[in-house]
Amino acid sequence: MLKRSYPSFRSALAAHDVVRLAGAHHALSGVLAQEAGFQAVWSSSLEVSASRCLPDASILSMTEYLEAAANIQKALDIPVVADVDTGYGGNYNVAHMVHEFEGAGITAVCMEDKLFPKMNSFATGDQTLLDTAAFASKIQTAKAVQSSEDFFLIARTEALISGAGVEEAVNRCNAYADAGADAVLIHSKARTKDEVVSFLDRWDNRVPVVIVPTTYPDWHIDEVRAAGVSVVIYANHGMRAALSAMRDTYRAIYEAGSTSSLESEIASVWDIFDLQRMADWQKLDA
Amino acid sequence: MLKRSYPSFRSALAAHDVVRLAGAHHALSGVLAQEAGFQAVWSSSLEVSASRCLPDASILSMTEYLEAAANIQKALDIPVVADVDTGYGGNYNVAHMVHEFEGAGITAVCMEDKLFPKMNSFATGDQTLLDTAAFASKIQTAKAVQSSEDFFLIARTEALISGAGVEEAVNRCNAYADAGADAVLIHSKARTKDEVVSFLDRWDNRVPVVIVPTTYPDWHIDEVRAAGVSVVIYANHGMRAALSAMRDTYRAIYEAGSTSSLESEIASVWDIFDLQRMADWQKLDA
Amino acid sequence: MLKRSYPSFRSALAAHDVVRLAGAHHALSGVLAQEAGFQAVWSSSLEVSASRCLPDASILSMTEYLEAAANIQKALDIPVVADVDTGYGGNYNVAHMVHEFEGAGITAVCMEDKLFPKMNSFATGDQTLLDTAAFASKIQTAKAVQSSEDFFLIARTEALISGAGVEEAVNRCNAYADAGADAVLIHSKARTKDEVVSFLDRWDNRVPVVIVPTTYPDWHIDEVRAAGVSVVIYANHGMRAALSAMRDTYRAIYEAGSTSSLESEIASVWDIFDLQRMADWQKLDA
Amino acid sequence: MLKRSYPSFRSALAAHDVVRLAGAHHALSGVLAQEAGFQAVWSSSLEVSASRCLPDASILSMTEYLEAAANIQKALDIPVVADVDTGYGGNYNVAHMVHEFEGAGITAVCMEDKLFPKMNSFATGDQTLLDTAAFASKIQTAKAVQSSEDFFLIARTEALISGAGVEEAVNRCNAYADAGADAVLIHSKARTKDEVVSFLDRWDNRVPVVIVPTTYPDWHIDEVRAAGVSVVIYANHGMRAALSAMRDTYRAIYEAGSTSSLESEIASVWDIFDLQRMADWQKLDA
Repeated sequence: MLKRSYPSFRSALAAHDVVRLAGAHHALSGVLAQEAGFQAVWSSSLEVSASRCLPDASILSMTEYLEAAANIQKALDIPVVADVDTGYGGNYNVAHMVHEFEGAGITAVCMEDKLFPKMNSFATGDQTLLDTAAFASKIQTAKAVQSSEDFFLIARTEALISGAGVEEAVNRCNAYADAGADAVLIHSKARTKDEVVSFLDRWDNRVPVVIVPTTYPDWHIDEVRAAGVSVVIYANHGMRAALSAMRDTYRAIYEAGSTSSLESEIASVWDIFDLQRMADWQKLDA
Repeated sequence: MLKRSYPSFRSALAAHDVVRLAGAHHALSGVLAQEAGFQAVWSSSLEVSASRCLPDASILSMTEYLEAAANIQKALDIPVVADVDTGYGGNYNVAHMVHEFEGAGITAVCMEDKLFPKMNSFATGDQTLLDTAAFASKIQTAKAVQSSEDFFLIARTEALISGAGVEEAVNRCNAYADAGADAVLIHSKARTKDEVVSFLDRWDNRVPVVIVPTTYPDWHIDEVRAAGVSVVIYANHGMRAALSAMRDTYRAIYEAGSTSSLESEIASVWDIFDLQRMADWQKLDA
Repeated sequence: MLKRSYPSFRSALAAHDVVRLAGAHHALSGVLAQEAGFQAVWSSSLEVSASRCLPDASILSMTEYLEAAANIQKALDIPVVADVDTGYGGNYNVAHMVHEFEGAGITAVCMEDKLFPKMNSFATGDQTLLDTAAFASKIQTAKAVQSSEDFFLIARTEALISGAGVEEAVNRCNAYADAGADAVLIHSKARTKDEVVSFLDRWDNRVPVVIVPTTYPDWHIDEVRAAGVSVVIYANHGMRAALSAMRDTYRAIYEAGSTSSLESEIASVWDIFDLQRMADWQKLDA
Repeated sequence: MLKRSYPSFRSALAAHDVVRLAGAHHALSGVLAQEAGFQAVWSSSLEVSASRCLPDASILSMTEYLEAAANIQKALDIPVVADVDTGYGGNYNVAHMVHEFEGAGITAVCMEDKLFPKMNSFATGDQTLLDTAAFASKIQTAKAVQSSEDFFLIARTEALISGAGVEEAVNRCNAYADAGADAVLIHSKARTKDEVVSFLDRWDNRVPVVIVPTTYPDWHIDEVRAAGVSVVIYANHGMRAALSAMRDTYRAIYEAGSTSSLESEIASVWDIFDLQRMADWQKLDA
């Protein structure tokens, strides 16, 4: 059936000891992540901006990130967690962001404590943190204007990304939980999980912890769970795989002068139709 | 540099004896097609609707197809040809379509002679053709309201898709050329190129011919050129490759419980940064 | 406070013996209608297309009408009823329309039984009706895919507009109620209320009746209520007043060479600030 | 005819000794300003945000302001000057803004030297200025990425609004002209024109001067011209008149219980049809 229905992220979190998310940049990638078993989908600013060939640096507008997140959510039976960067400005922007994302059916957002405009955490550029109190005020604003108790706010600290260290990260996350954050995300670009583990050792689990193991890929989900992490985001692997596959395929077509050798290696048009739920739609005209 | 500049499709056609296009659904795929050597990019309705997990059946609106086409064009140094389906309704819709696509920098569109709402040519469903005179009126409308002489209209006949045969296709294409079409597209879902070749045998080349060899993939570009075809669209292979790669990757992550085994097989975050032209952007803050 | 909250149209209808709506084309006009006491706001296709200086003839897309309706709803404490014309095409378009409008928080839509693309009911042009069974199928589709029981569908017959007469109107409205319509709208462009009254005389009130007294403006609300009408839409008077006022004001400025004589006659910048709820927003930074 | 064509703002400025603009918030208001004789239209952030009932405080996104400006321009035969606030962030945002506005056919923008997010100049709130060198860098960025020589950038100083005084305003405008600004806008919320006249006395006319006489409405256009001003923006009077008219009209309908007494005082539906250019469109189906 073509009814739209999905649980909130809060209820997904309650139902699993560890929730795994995969990054997506459009509904198709989100549906493939769902198909693989993930409990939620990460509407990634890096992926969405990359799909436009623009840097992940607050260049696209809230309108565009919202549209991307909402279009992913519409196709899913599991919740989207929207990467909302810095909240797109100050307190007014944060309040408007909550109104708009909640109004579009998004049940969880993740907001980070860098200055607007932000630069991607893995890129060269300014990674300056916003003052702790100012970010706490953004969190309070977001929670004060939410329409539903179900709305879930993840406060992401870039303390490790900016080089401020684990203690600063812990202090900030406590301030963010005090301000009403429903979870904290501790981001790291270290080549090992050590500084994240160090954070976890000092964290009292007053709210759940989210991690994004992009640069420390060998941390197995069983160990992650055992370490006390509640949510894991595999943030951009789907797009990276798509990029490689499209690059190879376009080159192969152009160089071979036909597509005959490719046909058996790539999905068929009928695979696309299945993901478009063509059969369900065709019943409407039956 | 970050200036935007690209030739019109008309000038690309003048510069090559055969123009090859690859289908794209977002700027990233368009840029990868450009990188591979294609002379233009096809903003494919099938791909754009599939990226939303919705059937290619006039469900998405002109606004959404336009946004997709324009966002691809903005990232390219080569022209986009926009798949505009039936023109989104009657003559008024066609006139508005030309205003909007031309206003957004699109220099070529391809409009087909089925009824609105249309169904994808490869799918089960109604493939009824619009009356020839009514479609000719749409073509005349489009050409009458264009603002620039450069604007290029491809008239696509679905005569073979609907089972009306080669003679009907030839008659229609002549009527469409009479009405002002700048080129004609002869679409076929046959397993061989034969009916397309039969069309070409009867066509006097008064305007260029476009083909889409999705179901007859083994026709080599050298033979296609020799047969008198001016434009070839490899319409959806990029997305089909991306679909397979994302499906495999999401499954692998979920099943393995970590991403370590994938890292060497997929593009890196830095490959994404390159496609986002990060280095060019960073010069703005130098 | 800046929380968003509003009742559904269904609950507004339950709470009043007659619900009065005024037409709006943006949030500002909607808020002024609410301020005047109306129980709901009509997101008018005529007004929304006129705000773009485009005919009310299915030229703007569903995306644009949805955006207009949703932006009005976001600013209100009362429900919007969205004018969705013909449902934007066939059954697939109707299903997608319900998904999108419901997903954006719209609790009631009004769909009419003309062909797509439609022409405004008061304008010269084709007013052909869709076959009754086909429109009933659209209604069934809409009701089958709604996510919430609260979603309310008004089926509008253009039988009188097309010249088909009162009996055809009654027959169609019965078929539409059979198909699941929550209310029917009987539209007329007669200079008197007589044909609408004739319709009401033959209608057994199985579902509520909606009217739009644009061409028969002297029917007082007390008489309308007494005649058994449940919903009255004053569809475009706000925009018509705005049009006259802007026309006069622009001319006066240009001709006078300054705005000094106008200042006392028009709203102040502070009136605008009040409607923007500036004071509520400023509390966020307190 | 339905072709789209309009001169650039640069050419409008060359053709008139003083160019008068009126503010608009949608195509309809823009067309009415054009009809009254104005040479260009101001796509006002105050009006556009007010039409959404949201403060003029960088809450709406660039996407939304661009859409508003582009939709006005599409309906006009005269150029739009887009109010782009602070450029929506830092240098990257400014570059992207130029790409997007120029790509949408906007030939002139006006960028101001306050911090992002900004507050409306007439409202209570932070009116802090961005450092002069940083704003000059934004101007250089904008001019470096423009695609056409025709693109026109007005640099607006809020020095008087922020209380920094006339000398600071002059110094900033010189720095902005050095950085490549095509004109400067000197904004004032004083009740008399005196501080603007003081600015003009010290300005050597190296680039044209723009004013916005909202709070000093009695300065006649002949005197303004004589004082050396090149461009005058009557920024929000159209919307203020519309607000009053809609407020009165909605109240009158609700209180009277019918619209009969209003019909002779407001524009007719046929006036709307004329502004929609219905007759021109209907020729397409002739």
